[in-house]
Amino acid sequence: MSSTEASGEAPLTYAGAGVDVAAAEDTVRHYARLAKSTARPEVLGGVGPFAAMFQLDVSRYRQPVIVSSADGVGTKLQLAAALGRYGEVGRDLVNHCVNDILTTGAEPLFFLDYLGTNGLAQEHRVEVVAGMAAACLENGVALVGGETADMPDVYRPGDYDIAGFIVGVVERDAAIDGSRIAEGDVLIALPSTGLQTNGYSLVREIWGVGKGLGEANDRAVLDQHYEELQGTLGDALLAVHGSFLRPLQPVLSQLHGIAHITGGGIPGNLGRVFPDHLAARVDLESWAVPPLFRIIQTAGRIAEPEMFRTFNMGVGLVVVAAAEDAPALLDALPGAWTLGAVIPRPSGAPSVLGVPR
Amino acid sequence: MSSTEASGEAPLTYAGAGVDVAAAEDTVRHYARLAKSTARPEVLGGVGPFAAMFQLDVSRYRQPVIVSSADGVGTKLQLAAALGRYGEVGRDLVNHCVNDILTTGAEPLFFLDYLGTNGLAQEHRVEVVAGMAAACLENGVALVGGETADMPDVYRPGDYDIAGFIVGVVERDAAIDGSRIAEGDVLIALPSTGLQTNGYSLVREIWGVGKGLGEANDRAVLDQHYEELQGTLGDALLAVHGSFLRPLQPVLSQLHGIAHITGGGIPGNLGRVFPDHLAARVDLESWAVPPLFRIIQTAGRIAEPEMFRTFNMGVGLVVVAAAEDAPALLDALPGAWTLGAVIPRPSGAPSVLGVPR
Repeated sequence: MSSTEASGEAPLTYAGAGVDVAAAEDTVRHYARLAKSTARPEVLGGVGPFAAMFQLDVSRYRQPVIVSSADGVGTKLQLAAALGRYGEVGRDLVNHCVNDILTTGAEPLFFLDYLGTNGLAQEHRVEVVAGMAAACLENGVALVGGETADMPDVYRPGDYDIAGFIVGVVERDAAIDGSRIAEGDVLIALPSTGLQTNGYSLVREIWGVGKGLGEANDRAVLDQHYEELQGTLGDALLAVHGSFLRPLQPVLSQLHGIAHITGGGIPGNLGRVFPDHLAARVDLESWAVPPLFRIIQTAGRIAEPEMFRTFNMGVGLVVVAAAEDAPALLDALPGAWTLGAVIPRPSGAPSVLGVPR
Repeated sequence: MSSTEASGEAPLTYAGAGVDVAAAEDTVRHYARLAKSTARPEVLGGVGPFAAMFQLDVSRYRQPVIVSSADGVGTKLQLAAALGRYGEVGRDLVNHCVNDILTTGAEPLFFLDYLGTNGLAQEHRVEVVAGMAAACLENGVALVGGETADMPDVYRPGDYDIAGFIVGVVERDAAIDGSRIAEGDVLIALPSTGLQTNGYSLVREIWGVGKGLGEANDRAVLDQHYEELQGTLGDALLAVHGSFLRPLQPVLSQLHGIAHITGGGIPGNLGRVFPDHLAARVDLESWAVPPLFRIIQTAGRIAEPEMFRTFNMGVGLVVVAAAEDAPALLDALPGAWTLGAVIPRPSGAPSVLGVPR
């Protein structure tokens, strides 16, 4: 091969174009240490060179079903960046993924992440992944790999996005798919910790956070103390999306359906697990919407239906169970309440009734 | 609950903040159709409400190992956007993932995607996912789910990023992990179709593509015809990252190691599968670096070592096999050539020798 030596002006390098492979390799060593801290016995060889390997103990299952999900955390990332806090969004991402596959009754096994950025500081990248690792540990999930991509020009300088991928397993005849939901079943709500990971673009629109109005504006908004929140708006907005794995795992066999309240709110998610002939009737009097949502609503003059379509309104997850199992479930699940009931679906009606539309 | 009705000025809505849930739902219907076209018999219920379910046929395996990988396609996205072509990058993403888990000998089973964007047109989102679905079909992989996130302010207007997540399976004692690599083994190279998915930020730096110099600049650069390429620079740069699954699947049992040449090039990837006491000796005279790389090198006045660290230089993937199996492999693998050999690693030497450093 011929050799083309640069001469005259400084030659172009990949680092000069915004992709510093050497710095990235150092960060990858941090990732590997974090991943190792979450390893389960089934993980073979840690973070492999090109792929992760996880040995499934098939003796534990008759018909194992592999359950998977991909998620992001939305523009909660920008609030976190405005507060200089990067760990929470990593935990959000893992817990969001854990909850999504938990809707089928799956035990989470392993997690991989993607981080795309234009110049996010290496220490912040490590903070994000450390948050993921912490949440993986809490959920008993192995962080087995991931990809960090330097994407000059695609992201705004300093900005980044993260995506999470989770894999779990459930015995086929134990999988929760909504088919056991029956008229007369009870809806039991579990409280959210806050917005979870949805509605942040609207919140940022209201207060102009992460909209180029400057760090001082953003910090002033987020550091504002609210009596009702017993703290700052920023802390309330950054509350970590909780994992429902630990409370639900012991009672999964009693559940006919599980809905994770994500983008689209209660009307967009609760009915997704319902058979066509049934509907969820939500009792709006059954809970007090937490103050954070009312603060957002007032500040943004947001109509009630838009609130319900955009935010979880305090409902993190809803389980469907037989009426006779409800008392024991309400006892077993911290903060749970009876949200409503399963009724025959009137012709042409949506799958969720009783919420503002 | 109290109802807060908006009055006076138009109330804020999520759509107004850049997140149009209704338009997104229409796009999701297209995704579901595309996903369905790739379904394998193991997929339960298509794209599920919160998670995808894939039933593993455990009777086919003694000790199944679940192999996974997460990837992106880098800023090839921006070249594709400059040319108004969105399908290729979807195919790139799937093939990149397929190759990554193929390094362990795994059969790919299913794929999920993440698409984050600030205002990418709905039809282009569908084009991206249609590209993924086409590549999934070609590789026999089920597209089981994904997430599209509207991220106003995080991405530059109109920009987007994609991440892919793949899951495959391999019998534990058939898994390729480099442990069988021995002195005297032969390195066999398979040709790349072009840059695959690495080095695009450097290429864009050279010609100022996707750097805010305007559509006319970008198109003029990419529409330039090169005699050596027998076509335009844009077409050569957008060549789809090939999948090596079909040619390699029949010969996997003969392979001691597989290296996918991604970010970091031959020096950064070939040695990753090697035991500590062995090294790959690459014979630079064994192939002619394709014209595309020399055009890039000349235009950017890039030093030879930087070229090798940044680009694949025409080598898409390298397999390691016993010398006696080499002739049959060279016959079976289209375009393959003997790239070099496995030698004892000199003390303190890197795992790849013979490439410019």
